[in-house]
Parts: sequence; C-alpha cells; structure tokens
Amino acid sequence: MRKILIILLLIGVQTTIFAQNFNVVKEKDALRKLYRKEIRIPNIGDYTTLKCDFHMHTIFSDGSVWPTVRVQEAYYEGLDAIAITDHIENQPGKKYVEGDQNSAFEIAKPEAENLNLLLVKAGEITRGMPPGHLNALFVSDVAALETEKYMDAIKEANNQGAFVMWNHPGWQAMQPDTCKWWDIHEEIYKRGWLHGIEVYNWDEWYPVSFDWCINKNLSFIANSDIHIVASHRFNYEKYKRPMTLVFAKTRSLEDLKNAMFERRTVAFFANQLAGPENLLKQLFETSIEIKKPFKTEKGIVFFEISNPTDLTFILENGSPKNKSPKKIEIFPGSTVIVNCAVTNENITLPYTITNLHTGMGKNLSVEIQVGK
Amino acid sequence: MRKILIILLLIGVQTTIFAQNFNVVKEKDALRKLYRKEIRIPNIGDYTTLKCDFHMHTIFSDGSVWPTVRVQEAYYEGLDAIAITDHIENQPGKKYVEGDQNSAFEIAKPEAENLNLLLVKAGEITRGMPPGHLNALFVSDVAALETEKYMDAIKEANNQGAFVMWNHPGWQAMQPDTCKWWDIHEEIYKRGWLHGIEVYNWDEWYPVSFDWCINKNLSFIANSDIHIVASHRFNYEKYKRPMTLVFAKTRSLEDLKNAMFERRTVAFFANQLAGPENLLKQLFETSIEIKKPFKTEKGIVFFEISNPTDLTFILENGSPKNKSPKKIEIFPGSTVIVNCAVTNENITLPYTITNLHTGMGKNLSVEIQVGK
Amino acid sequence: MRKILIILLLIGVQTTIFAQNFNVVKEKDALRKLYRKEIRIPNIGDYTTLKCDFHMHTIFSDGSVWPTVRVQEAYYEGLDAIAITDHIENQPGKKYVEGDQNSAFEIAKPEAENLNLLLVKAGEITRGMPPGHLNALFVSDVAALETEKYMDAIKEANNQGAFVMWNHPGWQAMQPDTCKWWDIHEEIYKRGWLHGIEVYNWDEWYPVSFDWCINKNLSFIANSDIHIVASHRFNYEKYKRPMTLVFAKTRSLEDLKNAMFERRTVAFFANQLAGPENLLKQLFETSIEIKKPFKTEKGIVFFEISNPTDLTFILENGSPKNKSPKKIEIFPGSTVIVNCAVTNENITLPYTITNLHTGMGKNLSVEIQVGK
Amino acid sequence: MRKILIILLLIGVQTTIFAQNFNVVKEKDALRKLYRKEIRIPNIGDYTTLKCDFHMHTIFSDGSVWPTVRVQEAYYEGLDAIAITDHIENQPGKKYVEGDQNSAFEIAKPEAENLNLLLVKAGEITRGMPPGHLNALFVSDVAALETEKYMDAIKEANNQGAFVMWNHPGWQAMQPDTCKWWDIHEEIYKRGWLHGIEVYNWDEWYPVSFDWCINKNLSFIANSDIHIVASHRFNYEKYKRPMTLVFAKTRSLEDLKNAMFERRTVAFFANQLAGPENLLKQLFETSIEIKKPFKTEKGIVFFEISNPTDLTFILENGSPKNKSPKKIEIFPGSTVIVNCAVTNENITLPYTITNLHTGMGKNLSVEIQVGK
Repeated sequence: MRKILIILLLIGVQTTIFAQNFNVVKEKDALRKLYRKEIRIPNIGDYTTLKCDFHMHTIFSDGSVWPTVRVQEAYYEGLDAIAITDHIENQPGKKYVEGDQNSAFEIAKPEAENLNLLLVKAGEITRGMPPGHLNALFVSDVAALETEKYMDAIKEANNQGAFVMWNHPGWQAMQPDTCKWWDIHEEIYKRGWLHGIEVYNWDEWYPVSFDWCINKNLSFIANSDIHIVASHRFNYEKYKRPMTLVFAKTRSLEDLKNAMFERRTVAFFANQLAGPENLLKQLFETSIEIKKPFKTEKGIVFFEISNPTDLTFILENGSPKNKSPKKIEIFPGSTVIVNCAVTNENITLPYTITNLHTGMGKNLSVEIQVGK
Repeated sequence: MRKILIILLLIGVQTTIFAQNFNVVKEKDALRKLYRKEIRIPNIGDYTTLKCDFHMHTIFSDGSVWPTVRVQEAYYEGLDAIAITDHIENQPGKKYVEGDQNSAFEIAKPEAENLNLLLVKAGEITRGMPPGHLNALFVSDVAALETEKYMDAIKEANNQGAFVMWNHPGWQAMQPDTCKWWDIHEEIYKRGWLHGIEVYNWDEWYPVSFDWCINKNLSFIANSDIHIVASHRFNYEKYKRPMTLVFAKTRSLEDLKNAMFERRTVAFFANQLAGPENLLKQLFETSIEIKKPFKTEKGIVFFEISNPTDLTFILENGSPKNKSPKKIEIFPGSTVIVNCAVTNENITLPYTITNLHTGMGKNLSVEIQVGK
Repeated sequence: MRKILIILLLIGVQTTIFAQNFNVVKEKDALRKLYRKEIRIPNIGDYTTLKCDFHMHTIFSDGSVWPTVRVQEAYYEGLDAIAITDHIENQPGKKYVEGDQNSAFEIAKPEAENLNLLLVKAGEITRGMPPGHLNALFVSDVAALETEKYMDAIKEANNQGAFVMWNHPGWQAMQPDTCKWWDIHEEIYKRGWLHGIEVYNWDEWYPVSFDWCINKNLSFIANSDIHIVASHRFNYEKYKRPMTLVFAKTRSLEDLKNAMFERRTVAFFANQLAGPENLLKQLFETSIEIKKPFKTEKGIVFFEISNPTDLTFILENGSPKNKSPKKIEIFPGSTVIVNCAVTNENITLPYTITNLHTGMGKNLSVEIQVGK
Repeated sequence: MRKILIILLLIGVQTTIFAQNFNVVKEKDALRKLYRKEIRIPNIGDYTTLKCDFHMHTIFSDGSVWPTVRVQEAYYEGLDAIAITDHIENQPGKKYVEGDQNSAFEIAKPEAENLNLLLVKAGEITRGMPPGHLNALFVSDVAALETEKYMDAIKEANNQGAFVMWNHPGWQAMQPDTCKWWDIHEEIYKRGWLHGIEVYNWDEWYPVSFDWCINKNLSFIANSDIHIVASHRFNYEKYKRPMTLVFAKTRSLEDLKNAMFERRTVAFFANQLAGPENLLKQLFETSIEIKKPFKTEKGIVFFEISNPTDLTFILENGSPKNKSPKKIEIFPGSTVIVNCAVTNENITLPYTITNLHTGMGKNLSVEIQVGK
C-alpha cells in the first residue's frame, strides 16, 4: 500500500481511492434508462396539444399485460392521456382473473397519478356488425354497460356522459369487402349518441371514414388497440404509436373531454395526419418556419424551411410554379433547402401535402410564401 | 379508362390493374415483424448449447405480465428454455388474481409448446437472509413448497427432484456490504440440496461467487429476474438479456436438467462469460477461427481471426510476445487482423481473455497459434 | 488518505489504487470501433462466395474520396473484392488532381493488401448512348483505354483480357422511357467483347436485363456506383450495399476473374437476388434448414425453418397446398414456424420465392419437404 | 382487361392504373435520405448559439476526403460553421495532389454557400513541442503561414487578424505523462497571440486546460480533428461529434469571429460541457423547465423537469436536501419526475451538475426552485 502511495506522490497527481469490489459489480449499461421521451408536436392557437391513445386492452379482457403496464408504456412514449378499453361483454373472461369492468381502471389509476398521465375511464362495447365495436370514454361505471341489447349499452354510456366512438369501421373481419355506414349507425348518430370515428386502428386506415367525420361533424380518432406489449406490436424504428391529437384548453381530463366533444382532434398515424382542414393547416403553419433567402444566383433564390417537430410533411406539385421542386420532404427535426426562380411579384409556391388528409382522397393545400 | 388503356398499349409494357381501396388501406411497415432471432453461440463437443433464463416473474407474484408474455419474449430473443419463478410465499398476492403457485406454468405451457420452447416448472423460495431467495427448478408441484420453515421448502423441492439455486447472493438489500457464504448455506450444501449459484442477476454479478461454484462444484447461473416487460428492463442496444448457457445432450427438458446437475453451464451477461475453465476454453476455441497469414512484410506476419458468433472476446497481454498487440478485440460476426514479428520457431501468442471469468479475479488464458 | 485506508481495511475488501488524471481523460465510447463486419452468405458446392462491388469512383474522376477510403469502406462492410472504376475519358478532371487513369489503383493497392481485400484494376468507359457506360475489369493499363472511338476502347480492354460489363442499361438519363438492346450492343456482344450486365445500380434495377443475361449467357452484376461517402449514399439501416456474389474456386483475383467469365455470379440488392436458376436454388437450399416437426395436433403438423444467413427469403403461394401459409417470410438469422395439414403421402409444399429473380417477371420456384 | 374493369365497376371503388415497368424499377428505400438534422441547443440571452468544428483535414494534407465532403458532413450533422485546417508545413504532401494551403478553402467555399454553412479560412501550424500544433482561424492567406520559424507563422497569423488556438495540449504523443504550460506558450500568450485552447480533441480532454482558459481568459474549444470520414471516426450512436458552441450576435462569419475573441464559447463533447460558469449556467437555465408540482402526498411533493434540448444534465448531491434524489439524470428531449419532502419555507434543492465543467475538477452548482 505504502509503495503505491509513494508512487502517487512522486507522479504528483491528485488521487482518489476506490475499492475493487469482489462482492458485487454493477454493470452500468445493462439496464435501459427508463424516462419519458417527449413527442415534439406544437400547441396551436390557445390550445395545448395532447397526445392520446383511447383504445387498448389488458388481462381484464383479451390483453396480456397488467393495467399498470399500459400507463408505463404511454409514459415512456410521451403520451398525455390514455383509455384502457377492455371488452365489456366477455369481461374479464380469463381463468384466475376476478374483478369486473371497472377493475383495470382502479388498478391503473394510482400509477397514472404517479406518472402525471391523464387516465380516461372507459370500456369497449363489443358486438357483431352492425354496430360492431364502440368505445365509451369518460364513463363513471363501465360495468353498467354490460347489457343484453347493444342499444341499451350505448344509451347507458350516453347517460353517463360518455364520448362514444365507432371502432375500426372498415375492419375486414366485420366488413370484408366494403366499409359502409349502416342504418344502425345512422340511428345512433341521429340520436346524438355517436361522437367520433376511429379512422385508424392497428396498421390500417379507412379513407371513406374521413368523409364521415367531415360531413357528419365527428371527431377523427387514431388508436393502437394494443393487446400484447406495445413494443412487440409496433415498428417504433419507423413510426410512433398511432395516436389522437386533441387540442385542449388545458392538460386536464375535463378539457380533454370538452375538446373531443368540440371535435378538436386529429388522427396521427404512420407519419400521416387526418383531420379537419383548419386544424391541419394550423398544425403545419405552427410546425414549420420558412426562412429568408440566404442566396440568389442566376435568377434562382435559395431558402430554408425548418421543422423542429416530430411531424413529417411531404409537399408535392406535379407542375410546380417558378421551377420549384416537384417534391419537398420535410423530415422531423430537420431543415431543408428549397430553390425557385425569382420573379417580380411576390413568390408564392402552391403545394399539396400528400401525407395530410382532409377527406377521402383529399389532401391539404398550402402556399409557401418566399420572403425577400 | 379507355384513354389510359390506349396509352398502356402504346407504351407497350405489360400492365397490371389494382384498385385504390377507399375502404381500407394497410400500412405495411406499421407493425413490427415478430419472429425468432437466433443467438449465434456454437455447440461444443457433442453438446447442444441451450440459451436459458431461469428467473422471471408474472402477475402471479409481483410481475406485471401474463405468463404467455414471458414465453413470447424468450422466443423473439432466441432463448431455448425458461423458468417462470414467481414468489411462492406471497403467492399470488394481487387483488383480482386467483389461482395458486402452479397457475403461471399451466397458462404458459401451451404457448411454450406452440413456440417450441422448453418450459421448466419452477418457483422462487423467498425468505429473509439467511438463506435469502432460492429457485427450485424442475419441480412437479410448486404449491407444495409453501411451508412455514424454509428448510422444509428446500427439502420438499429436493424430494421433487429439483435443481436448487441460490439467487443473487450479493444483493445489497440482503448483504449490504459483503457477500458471504453463511452456515445455513453450508448446511444446505452439505445435505446435497444446493446445485447452483446465480452469479449474475439484473445488472450485477458477484465475483466471490465464481469461486464458490468452482470450489464447491456448483453450476454457474445468470438470469434476468424480470418483473416488468423485458424490453423495458434491459438495454438491448448494447447487450442481450443475461442468460445461462447449458450444454445438453439434446434440446429436451430431461437433458437440460441432466446437464445442469452435471454442472455443464456457463453464465453469459453483459458480453462476459463466467464458468469452468474447460467449458470457456471450448467455447472460445469453437467460436473463433485463426486464419493462415495473408501477408508477411519486413519480418512482420499478418493474419486474420474470425468470429461468426454473437460472443465477444477481449484478449489482453501487458507484455505481448513477438510485438503482437497488447489488446485484441474480437467482436461478434467480425474478422480482426493481427500482426506479430516472425521468428524461427512456431509462433505462439499467450493472451488473457479479460471478459471470460474462471474465478474471482481470474480470467481464461489462451494461446494463439499462428499458422504457416 | 489514512482515513480512506482505514475504511478500506475495515470493510476488508481487496483494493487497487488509480490516479485520477488531470492531464488527459480518454472518453472510451467516443470513437467508433472500426472492424470488419462479415456478411453471412454461405459458400455453395465447392465454391467460395465472394462479395464484390465492381463500380465506384474517387477524386480521380467525379468521386469525392481518396482511393484508400473505398478500400476501407469495403473492409468495414465485409466485402471481399472491389474495383475502382473512375471515368476514363474526363480523367482526372479535377483541378489540383494530377496523375492518370492508373493512379487510383496505385494508391489503393497497398491499403487493399493491408486489409486482405482483392482489388481489381479497372476503369469506366464513359460514352453517350449507344453504347453508354461500360466497365472494363481486370485490365493491365487503364490509360490505354482512353481512345477516340469507343469501339477501340472496348477492343483494347478485351486485348488486355478484360471482363467487360454494360453499366446501368436502363438509366433514364440515357434511355428515358425504355431499356432496349441496341445494335451496337449486339455487335459488341457478337464479337465476344461483352461479358456481363449491371442489372442493378444505385437504387434501380432493370427486369428486362435479367432475360438478356439468361438468353445471351452474360453475368448478372449489381454494383453501388458510389461517388460520395458510401454511408452517406446508402440506407444501411435497411439494406446492405448492392453487391455481386461471385462463386469462385478460391479467394484470389485469378479465380474471381475465372468465375465471372464462367458466369457464376448473382446480383444481390435490396434484399433481393437475381441470377441463374441453378445458382439461386443452391443459395436457397444451402442457406436454410427445414427442421423435423416438433408438434402435431388435430391433423396439423408444426415445423421450423432456420436461416442463419444474412439473406431474406419471401415464399408465396396464392393457393397453398395442405393449408400451409400463403406467405412465409424467412428473415436473416431467424427461425420461422410453419404449419400445414398432415396427409398420408409425403408432404411437399410448393412455393415461389418472390424476392429471387430468375428472369423478367420470373421468380424461383421451390418445394418445401416436410420431414417425419 | 375488360373482365378486370367489370369487376372494378362492380365493387364500385375508384381505380387507378399503373404499368408494371420492366425497364426500370426504383427501390424507394435503397438510398439514405440526405438532409440537415438540426442539433437542439437553445440560444442564450441575445445570442445565437452556433455549433462549430474548427479542426479537420482533407486530402490537401493527411486527410482522406475531398474538401466538399467536410462541408456535407457538417451540414448533415447540423453544424453552423467549420474550419478546414490542413497542416501547413507538409502541405499538400500527397502524390498527385497539387495546389497550395489555400486550395482546400477555395474548393469547399462554393459548397458551403450552397448549403448555407459558415466556412472559416484556416490552417494548422504543425510543429514539434513546444509549441506543438496551433490552429490559425479567420486568416486571409494560409500559404503565408509557411515559415521557417514557428514564431513567424504565429506572428503572421496574428497580422492577418487570426484567432489562434493551441491544439490538443495534452496529446500524449507530445506530452507523454504531463500536460504543462511551457514558457513558449507563456510568451505567445503574453504577446496576445493566443486566444483559445482546444480542451477536447478526438476522444480526449485535458482537465488542467480548463483552468488555463479560466485563469488566462482564453476560449474553450472542442474539435473533431477528423482525418478520415466522420461517420467512420465517431460513435454517433452514443454522442454527437465534438464541437464548440459559440454565442454570436448573428449567424455570420464576422459575429462568429467577434464572439470567439470575446470568449463566448463552450466546449461540447461526449455529453459534457466545459466553459465559463456564467455561460454554462445560462445554458442550463435556458434548456430546462421546472414545472409546477402535479401531486403532493404524505408530505412529499412531485414535480417534472423538462429538457427539450439535445443536451444531457446529470445532477448529483451526496447529501440531498428534503429527501430529494441523490442523482437526477435529465436526458435529451425528455421529462423527468422529481420528488422531495415539503417544508414551510420555499424549497430550494442544491445540486452539482457533474457533466458540466467549470474548471479542473470543478462542476457547475445550481439550485432547483420547487414551485407552489
């Protein structure tokens, strides 16, 4: 020992001592760092943008995880609100699992409070087609929705003040080669008992349902419908989990609910957005920044478009103005350089954002104003 | 329509027709491809190398997933055998969860059969220190291990022909600033009731326990001890899940059990291996290929070492022979170029593999034979 | 200092001392580990499978890297042979760059010898269409190929014993809306001066050229044609660099050349293979292992198919036999479980491998033999 | 054809026609998307934060890429300014490479203008120790720095108005077992000819040099010193390229230069920052947001800290106040939950940010104010 000390004194550097421990050695990189990774989507106007998933299952129906896992997954992925929507009719259905349709919420609630997540009490009304599956969100007693007739379940949900949505309307297990709006749905809708459509579920979306949302003034909803572990289900290397963006006055359950009833929602899935034109337009304009030209050469002006968000925007124009590009891809957290021919009047470049859907086969149109 | 057809006929290329479907659009990259990714570790001698994890929990104790999830995780990660080891004493312990200590196995078994995985029936005897926690593997009735005295539980396990291992001996919750072998363990061991030591658990290993395995002829075991979702727990970007390599006559439960009783196991964790010298030596020699020199220049010979496995080998020598490198890092699936000075006699380069542990503070020594 | 020592003696663990160095601190993870990552593609029959890229540029034409970089990139990516093919006519073309068409090879050669890579001396005959661009491989003097008439250049290449290939025949810059075989190519071919076709280049392939290779007995070639840094050019997260697989007697320049003249080549690009039926069939059969059934239940047999290689095989059958799956995706380093109905006679499942091309619009047909 | 049309009309969906093209097929994911990925570091006060790398080489000295590659790499990585600093004395040094010490700048300049990057004209004065290597930035004629005596080179650089920095002072090739300030450096410094120190280079940093910067009022600089391809050199999976953060009035060469002379710089390397206390404090305070508590339970208050930047902050306190955590890791783009005991007076939690260096062995101290 002394020898070492002398050496240390000789080389004259400051020294610290540690004990090489033969009892226990910690592998510092063995465990994954578990923290909340935020999703970068801007607030629009006076509204806070909440990232939500309103469709998922646990062991209390045909899912394979304990309710707390759904809260943890949502937290790590940066979601703000979730609804656990176990199937109501065959609930709980698993051998060894007791409790009722309210149990999953009861178990998940404390975890949600610890992680500052909004947990929506909910259940999935699971019937054959018509009317198929419907989620009842913001209910007070899920068990009360277990009724013989589905109409009674939907009525009860509405009596409890629920936001009711039609799930995966074009799911081929239920509508093999079409995606039609049935008389039954018309009736539910007429009664004011239907408030949203799940335009995206799992890995599929239903273009025709975009028009339903627009024409009938229903909320655009995108959900995961996870049954197994989320990271087993989705290809996170390419996309985030499908989610619904809700534009709420504040980050609270009450304002979340109000915003949904007021149709301030956008479906976000596979780097695409679907929703009302005005909301998509605001999202695009709030997300990107068109910078002043940094270079002009031989009648061509060069400028940058920045996008600090996690959203992607694919701008296309078959016959672009001023020799601007036919396609401009604006990726998350990136800046892209665009050039076009200079003219006397103010330069305005019209584009269609082909990954932003405002209806069936319809995309958002925008104009890029090139500054001086 | 006709116009398009005419165009097609004019450009004279073969054509196919598809309908752009407004009912449903599938996002082909939205879901993760779920398949079994094999772990590349060679068989040695006449033995099949089985990758095993003998310590994990489900909702039937303090875990948060349904038993089938443990089977699925193991399948995706390329494991061959697992044991679900829920805590026996406070079992099942969760509100809404019924069943007994045999339920997790009963639920997981059919999934294991579907995925061709070996499922070991097991449980964790969970007591204070001493003796702390012990896993009983290959038991017939886990419930029977719920006894007042821990000695009775260990005895019952052995009566059932169990392989009994001492879990995380140096866990600081139980041995805060030491990792000692208690009289109790000596007694269990003397009676022939102890067969292995968990030298690695979660993110930590216990160097002193390497010597216990060597001196008392016990099996080296490394386990995950997962409670939450495996992919939430471990840093798979850097390491595989900790696991025990078992060298068995065939890939069957019976031969797995025999191999463990015959101590043919190696602990694999954080790109390190710990086990008996002869097994580590065989693993190294079977894993790498030393190629013939491809170049000789100015008395220096250049040759390649290939490693098609998923194992890593870090060779070091403070005063290397023939001017060979002080450090040779052989990464998974790679080939590394080594050079050294040529001499008349056959060239043999002695190295210590610093990430292969044969005891407390002891590493495997090898000799690299440079060919002609 | 003494206090620390006393503590250490008290806790009685072995200790080592190190000096915290204020002169220099090394960040151990700051630099990338640079080593050769092998590509797992099996040898077939008596042939060694060489992974080759025969088309790339350096600063000696319109590329942006020094020749040694091409060798390093190929080494890291696990290639066995490369050819630097700078444009011959406008060579060297860059201000401040001297030397001639042989300089790039001269500079790269020593690096190739150090990294045990086969370096093919070559150049790109760069003319308008017809005949477009042709690579001359295995030449002795690239400069001699700088001639006024392209026919003289091709002749000179052949006089030097070159393997001559037609590059990117369908490149739209040269054949905007077709990919035709010109009289000029017929003439070159008739004279025996053409030996291969680049059926894949950059990010595109030319189905019609598959038939040319088959019908005229020419070698299938896939190349990168990199000009900038390879890792800037290609999406390595999804695919390996496009390359040509050459099946040679040994890993030597001579046998590489012979194998190419003997047409033992397959194009490998974007997880697809294109080549002669017999070679693709051998590659498939050598790559996968069909395991014995591990389970039979209710007349359904379950078995595994393993693929330890880096190749992907997508098996499809619109109307599958014995209720086997319509699609079987066999990913690199994976094992997939397949099931089908049991019948009395031996079970043989016919499939088409849709990512293995044997001609224009033609794929390899195989039969899966289900064991007993 | 007609049949298909009829079918289409029957199922009544809109249809489009495309021709399966046998001339050319584009692989849409084959190429990497090349775009500028921004680095998220906030501006502080009235200053724009510029991300800079002032030390790199090209084929015009001992580097292996064409000058334009350095500009492209910097652009993709989100840098704002770079300096190409080829060695002056042995310039250009490569066979086949002509031109002089100004050539690299001349070649890179147009590319920098196209990509809106600030390109600093510079060179590396490369001498033995003392004084070792020094970079002269913002010079007008690099060739004029090729002098017999190094003092003349440094004088000439200053005559040209250069910002002169001492490179890798602790590089062990030059100061094997120390990192001392020589009389020569004292003289250069006394004459006002030295303005900054490269406290980080490649994979190493020099703690003692932090104090030199503080005590002698010199700029903290971190650079890559790349010679090969940047993505071959650095481990981008873990860290960004080492860089210097410069806080400038505007994003222009003039303001960049002024800011450096005014010492408004911070070294950023391996998720650590080194610089003057006031700048690090501002960076921290501008980067994070301490949210209002979202929960109080049993005298414990819970609140969130958000960090939308790409910076990492590791807060530690051996004996934390109010039972707050001993360690708080705030990762890029994340939110972390912190809790502590509630008391009557305002809660202030003192921490040291162990990855922010304000001197040799000194870290930034901060106080977390917990809101009401």
